[in-house]
Order: sequence, then C-alpha cells, then structure tokens
Amino acid sequence: MELWYTEQQTPNLGLSCKINRTLHVEKTEYQDLAVIDTIQYGRMLVLDGMVMTTEVDEFVYHEMITHVALNTHPRPERVLVVGGGDGGAIREIIKHTSVKEAVLGEIDRRVVEVSQEYLPSIAGALTDARVTLAIGDGVEHVRQSKGKYDVILVDSTEPIGPAVGLFSREFYQDVYEALTPDGIMVAQSESPFVNQDVIRMIHTNLQGVFPIKHLYLASIPTYPSGLWSFTLASKKWDPLQADPATFQAMETKYYTPDVHFGAFKLPKFAADLVK
Amino acid sequence: MELWYTEQQTPNLGLSCKINRTLHVEKTEYQDLAVIDTIQYGRMLVLDGMVMTTEVDEFVYHEMITHVALNTHPRPERVLVVGGGDGGAIREIIKHTSVKEAVLGEIDRRVVEVSQEYLPSIAGALTDARVTLAIGDGVEHVRQSKGKYDVILVDSTEPIGPAVGLFSREFYQDVYEALTPDGIMVAQSESPFVNQDVIRMIHTNLQGVFPIKHLYLASIPTYPSGLWSFTLASKKWDPLQADPATFQAMETKYYTPDVHFGAFKLPKFAADLVK
Repeated sequence: MELWYTEQQTPNLGLSCKINRTLHVEKTEYQDLAVIDTIQYGRMLVLDGMVMTTEVDEFVYHEMITHVALNTHPRPERVLVVGGGDGGAIREIIKHTSVKEAVLGEIDRRVVEVSQEYLPSIAGALTDARVTLAIGDGVEHVRQSKGKYDVILVDSTEPIGPAVGLFSREFYQDVYEALTPDGIMVAQSESPFVNQDVIRMIHTNLQGVFPIKHLYLASIPTYPSGLWSFTLASKKWDPLQADPATFQAMETKYYTPDVHFGAFKLPKFAADLVK
Repeated sequence: MELWYTEQQTPNLGLSCKINRTLHVEKTEYQDLAVIDTIQYGRMLVLDGMVMTTEVDEFVYHEMITHVALNTHPRPERVLVVGGGDGGAIREIIKHTSVKEAVLGEIDRRVVEVSQEYLPSIAGALTDARVTLAIGDGVEHVRQSKGKYDVILVDSTEPIGPAVGLFSREFYQDVYEALTPDGIMVAQSESPFVNQDVIRMIHTNLQGVFPIKHLYLASIPTYPSGLWSFTLASKKWDPLQADPATFQAMETKYYTPDVHFGAFKLPKFAADLVK
C-alpha cells in the first residue's frame, strides 16, 4: 500500500509526498498539528495542513531567516523569535557567539514539545543555556518589551489563523519599539509567485515605520512555488552595506557571505512587488 | 467534478495542478506529448509525463537559459538551441539585436507544431525571419557544425529518453568544436536539491573540455524542488566579468543585470556539488 500526503498549497496546486507513516497527530489549543515521516524530505511538521518544516530542507529557511540579520548587526546580543516553535531559528541564532539571550515567543507549547520529541535535529538547541522559552502571545510579548532586542525574527505561519496579527502595521510599530536603537527585524513574507498580495501588504504596512527595508529570497522546495521571501526592516544597519569580514564563522549548508548579498538580487517581477 | 494532473517528479514526490481540461494528447515518434490547461499555471506542455513549460512560469527558464550567455558574449550573431521545441528560448534569443540567425535543432517536429498551435505566447517567435528550424537529431547537427555558433543552448529534457546523448563528454566536445573560438554553451542541468548526480555528471564530463565553467540557478515553480540549475561553459568570456553597460536593453520579467550576477551566488550545498 502506498500512502501519500498532499498539501493543497493553493486551491489549484498540491505538493504530494510519499510517506512511511504518520508519527503524531493532535488538535492543540490553537491548531491541528502533525508530524509525518516522508521518504523525499524526511520528517515533516504540518500545522493546519500546511508544511512548516522538513528535516531535509529546513536548513534553508532557518539559516536564511537568521544569519542575514545577525551578520548585518555588528554585535547582536538579545534576539527574539516570534513563532518558530520548532526551534530551527533558535539553533541558528546561537551559532553567533555575541548572542547572550535567544528568546522563543511561541504561542503553542505543543509545537515546541512535539518538535523536541520528533524533530531533535531541529529543536535540539532549545535546551541551550542561552535560550529562554516564552510560551504565550508573541504580539503581547513584543508589546511589553521596550528597547530590549537587537534582532526580532517573525517566524510565523501565513496571515490566517493564529498568525494574522503578525502582519499588521500596529505589530510592526510594536516591533520597532521592542528593538534597540539600532535593531533589525526579519519576517518571513511568503512566496513572490503565489502570495504577491501578502508581500505587498507587508511592505505597505512597514512603510514609514523603519527607514531601511529590503525583500530577499531563498529556495525552499516544500513551500508553495519553491521560492520564498523574507522582509528585513532596520533602524540603522543596511544588510547590503554589511562587511563580510565581520561575519560570524560557522557551519552552514545554504547561507554564505555570497548568498547574503546574492539573496537581495531580485528577479524583476519580485523587485516590482516592493517598488 | 475536479480534475487534477499530477507529475510524479520523483518516485516519492508529486506536483499536482487542478485543470480545466486536456487540450491535446498524442504519442509522437519520440515521446508522449500533452498540453493541459491548468488553473494555477495556465497551459502546460508535458512530455513523457514531465512538465516542460507552463504559460505562467516559462519566462524564468527561457530568460535564464538565454540572456546570461548572450549578454556575456560581446556580439552573438549565430545561436543554436538544441531541443527547446516550444520556442521559448528562441523568443528570448531574438531580443538580442546582434543575432543574425537563431537555429532550433529539435528532434520532434510535433513539439514545435503543437506548441505553435496551443502555446502561441511561447512559440510565436519561431516564424521570425532570423529563425531556422532544423528538425532532426541535435547531436548530429552539432557534429556537422564546425566553428559556426557563438552560443549553443542545450534546452533538453532530463538525461533519459531522447535526451540522454546530450549529457555526454563526447557531446560537449562536439559542442566545443561547433562553437566559434570565443563561443559559449549553456545547458539546463536539473535541480540541485533533487538531481545532484546529474549536476556532478555534467561537470565531470565538461572537465578539461572548456576552460571556463560555472553553475547558476533560477527559481522555476513547476520543476522538481522549484530550484533549477544551468551550466555555462565558455572558451573565453566569463559571465562574472561581463560588463552590464554592454547588456542588451530589453523587456524581461526575471533576468536583470543584478540577476545575471546574483544567479552565480550559490547556496553552499550547491557550490559544493561542483567543487
């Protein structure tokens, strides 16, 4: 018997993976949560029917949401991840030796616990001494943090369900205030092929909040279209002016100093979205 | 009733598109050929069950297999496409005003004819006065052309079926000899996520044939993993040393001078494949 899992990525598009078996399924307080063991992409975390991360391609998302900002800031010490309960972004953050505290602001405790149980290669760093778990509403956590963080990463699901507040102008204003005077935000901002309205909305909502704002891209096979975007917003430091000589030495599989700058070389149709 | 077309991209991975209807199906002398009208990606050309091109994302592949080489060569006049019967590469080639002759060396006449009938936005340029149709074996055409072409583009299916000969060392040697003394070849070279063996094979087979050799990438949603590679091999001109001031002015949707250089900034795992 062949078992396949299909994510209906849009009403008209599906990605299907042959699976060995389903490892875990539950309905948490916030969402449907599943871990599936796929043959092509290894174990896969699925929230509300959407692929969040897989063992095989998670490195792209987690390296790219993290290192661009952390290498742009000259000395990031306090970093917040909003969402990202799988712990992959935290694993990358603590590769930076300047970091003294990495806080995970995840609303759904079960995402953290299930990731720790079934995805240890991703969630393993959550027990590091520099990591703080702040289980609760990320929007509220940001609102109560004034001038605290050097970098805030918005590692959210798409703008429906629990994450909808993470794409608003009010939230970006709160993020601005939660950052230090030279702080940087990065938010995952969906696919330039499939979610053009989301990218436009994010950039519209950021207008006037941060003086520096860039879209950058990375290739993530299990996300719709395989091309994903991130939006970096900064008070002072521009990632395009960063000095590679100051970049943290570390093991990576996707991010390199070349990729740091190359990711901002947008295809024309993507550049046009944020003009 | 909902109709879906699924390409089984690997034994363990499928991409599914909801379709309006099937426009054309036939078994040609060489392969199974179909044109399907999908909702997400428009009309789709399918050969032997593999998506070759779609109306919505074809611009990426056709711009990227073409303009990198044609802008690297200072004055490309004669250009050959091996395969590429849909005509998309030809459409991009003739945007370059220096080009006097663009030859399409496609083995399967029916791919050309069906593309002209059902995909006019892609195949429309095939009737241009500068275009020559050379229906027949591309390997043989290359072998019989000595020192003729400034640029040769290998726009093939994957290395099984009719295209298997287009990935061999002997073929690359023939391409070298079919090029002018400062000629350039570009070959589509599959996905760095899914077809790592093919990329390694191509680069191994090119070793010692051309002095300059680079892998570059573009994002194509309907190809396996969404990330696709091209291999450029050159006798004299290096795409990384090209002068953007000399680039052809033209309408594009993906390629820009920034993308020209950014496409060579490889993620570490991809760079490692061709080390």
